[in-house]
Amino acid sequence: MVETSGVGVPGVTELNIEPVRLREFGMDLMTQLGVPQEKGEICIEAFLFGSLRGIDTHGFFALLPRMVREIRAGMIDPKADSCVIKRKTATALIDGCRGPGPVTAFQSMNEAMRRCRESGIGGVATYNCNHFGAASFYGYQAVKEDLIGLTFSNATPRVVPHGGREGVHGTNPMSFAIPAGKYPPLVVDIATSASSAGKIGQALKKGEKIPEGWALDQNGHPTIDPEKALKGLFLPMAGHKGYGLGLVVDILTGALTGSFCGKEVPALEDLTTPYGASFCMLALNPSCFAGVNMFKEKVDRLIEDCVTCPPMDGVERVYFPGELEAIEEERRTRIGVPIQEEDLDRFYQNLRDHGLDFKEDVLI
Amino acid sequence: MVETSGVGVPGVTELNIEPVRLREFGMDLMTQLGVPQEKGEICIEAFLFGSLRGIDTHGFFALLPRMVREIRAGMIDPKADSCVIKRKTATALIDGCRGPGPVTAFQSMNEAMRRCRESGIGGVATYNCNHFGAASFYGYQAVKEDLIGLTFSNATPRVVPHGGREGVHGTNPMSFAIPAGKYPPLVVDIATSASSAGKIGQALKKGEKIPEGWALDQNGHPTIDPEKALKGLFLPMAGHKGYGLGLVVDILTGALTGSFCGKEVPALEDLTTPYGASFCMLALNPSCFAGVNMFKEKVDRLIEDCVTCPPMDGVERVYFPGELEAIEEERRTRIGVPIQEEDLDRFYQNLRDHGLDFKEDVLI
Repeated sequence: MVETSGVGVPGVTELNIEPVRLREFGMDLMTQLGVPQEKGEICIEAFLFGSLRGIDTHGFFALLPRMVREIRAGMIDPKADSCVIKRKTATALIDGCRGPGPVTAFQSMNEAMRRCRESGIGGVATYNCNHFGAASFYGYQAVKEDLIGLTFSNATPRVVPHGGREGVHGTNPMSFAIPAGKYPPLVVDIATSASSAGKIGQALKKGEKIPEGWALDQNGHPTIDPEKALKGLFLPMAGHKGYGLGLVVDILTGALTGSFCGKEVPALEDLTTPYGASFCMLALNPSCFAGVNMFKEKVDRLIEDCVTCPPMDGVERVYFPGELEAIEEERRTRIGVPIQEEDLDRFYQNLRDHGLDFKEDVLI
Repeated sequence: MVETSGVGVPGVTELNIEPVRLREFGMDLMTQLGVPQEKGEICIEAFLFGSLRGIDTHGFFALLPRMVREIRAGMIDPKADSCVIKRKTATALIDGCRGPGPVTAFQSMNEAMRRCRESGIGGVATYNCNHFGAASFYGYQAVKEDLIGLTFSNATPRVVPHGGREGVHGTNPMSFAIPAGKYPPLVVDIATSASSAGKIGQALKKGEKIPEGWALDQNGHPTIDPEKALKGLFLPMAGHKGYGLGLVVDILTGALTGSFCGKEVPALEDLTTPYGASFCMLALNPSCFAGVNMFKEKVDRLIEDCVTCPPMDGVERVYFPGELEAIEEERRTRIGVPIQEEDLDRFYQNLRDHGLDFKEDVLI
């Protein structure tokens, strides 16, 4: 089913595609790419998670073509399971074995969750990983079982240290997913840089400038031109604070695993070499502290205080972290995932260029 | 020994006081206040940690009078040990029993460290706490034993949610302390608000304005006047990102312990009621992952990449997180902790007002 929505640029047709069709289409491609059924499902759900929650930079149409490219180039081993190298009561060191990023991340979070059920907390650090999509997908895994899920990943060094003009660490996302009672989960999912490549790319596409404080050009000078920013470097969020947090992410991932760290992390776009990012997953079990019911009651009250907070002038109302994404998820589950017709054509062409075979009417 | 340093405002005499004298002076007061020897030492070391590292808002002259006031008011029980309420292999829920904040925090971090030695990771959440001073003091405890130490505390709700104009959570600090090899530890110690009461107070004292984006006045309008800011509310760092992180701190502390959370946390300045903040301490053991030597090598390399990064125009050089504090610690350990003469007089008067007895020549 297709709906052409009235919003958007004149002359541009926007399609809304039902999630069930994206699943079917995606799973067919996964099979063609040699990704086993169960692993393919994890990847497609991770991509849909981004698309449904409005995180289009980490959604189906952004990440599926990336994975196709990386499997075809041999960067990703489509069949690889991750493998526990060292285990303790509450921790594990894991080799991601170049499996699909979402598969590795899902298995890592499972290991952390397994440990935290008994021990109260579980921590896993995983190396030899590929891009996992939206970090909060794996926190959600924990939330579904009334656990707290924390997710960290390092990335290609495109972020300058505070005061510097050379990339030293990545946009290094951190995500915290928290189970609530009567509200949707409270989800914080942020890059530790002021912005991300995805957001700057969106500004470029819309012909917009980017805010000051986001990026430097290739020569290390501040820029508001998204094109120069994408060829240049990103600034940490909140100056020295984001700089510190970005390094902490590299330490909990690359340093803890003894793998690539900071400037050592290869360029994601370089298809000639494995990516080699690292993840860290922590899971905490509220039932080992004051109990799940008490915990959810407290989280609900905190959320209540946020959403009933009087707004500043010019602000309609205050949302809690993850609320806008939950609203969008409900909406897009109902009406479908939006994509512009010309983007869909490019998406198809990209897949065909990689020798994939499909019927276009599966989606529309 | 006193040195009058030439820096500072004309007509203002700045004294530099040797750490050993501050220790002796402080321990005498601790005894008068009924704080047992071992606990008194923890408090004084926590205060000196702030003073030596240049974190004067969380140093000896700021926090000792606060503790005196709070012990005299009955908010702090000077003899109380914290008490484990619930234990799992890798976690503990602890009642801080209104002991001195640094004592509770020290004991909580010890519990987390004990668990992480065997299990790889340890997590402790503690309620019924008082102000612990500089968060990174407790991370340092872990670093001394080659462990990673994470510290979180909630606080009186003075920070608005993103877009709101009522305080919903505290400045909610988070600290990460990381052992390095040939470098001093990498230490991130930040409020999740754009600034802190301490820094705004310093601006007020110097007669300076504060930057935009730090605070709102009592009516919820942006202000750069530090006096109005101190009567008003603080903004989260980096907009929605700091808002999310601030809430996460309340969740890992107040919600996990089932204690005061967000708006429920009492006002620190209200001496008629216990403070009731909560802490969360996490410790991770690099030897349970890729090993301590490998870990330190990676952290060293990351630090190296930061300090050798070419600086932006107008910046002398790039420092790694914790480096400026380590330099200051070395300097102040040598030349002493600076204080203006009139501030020292006020400090003495404040102590006398609380019935404490001492000889002024202990310090100078």
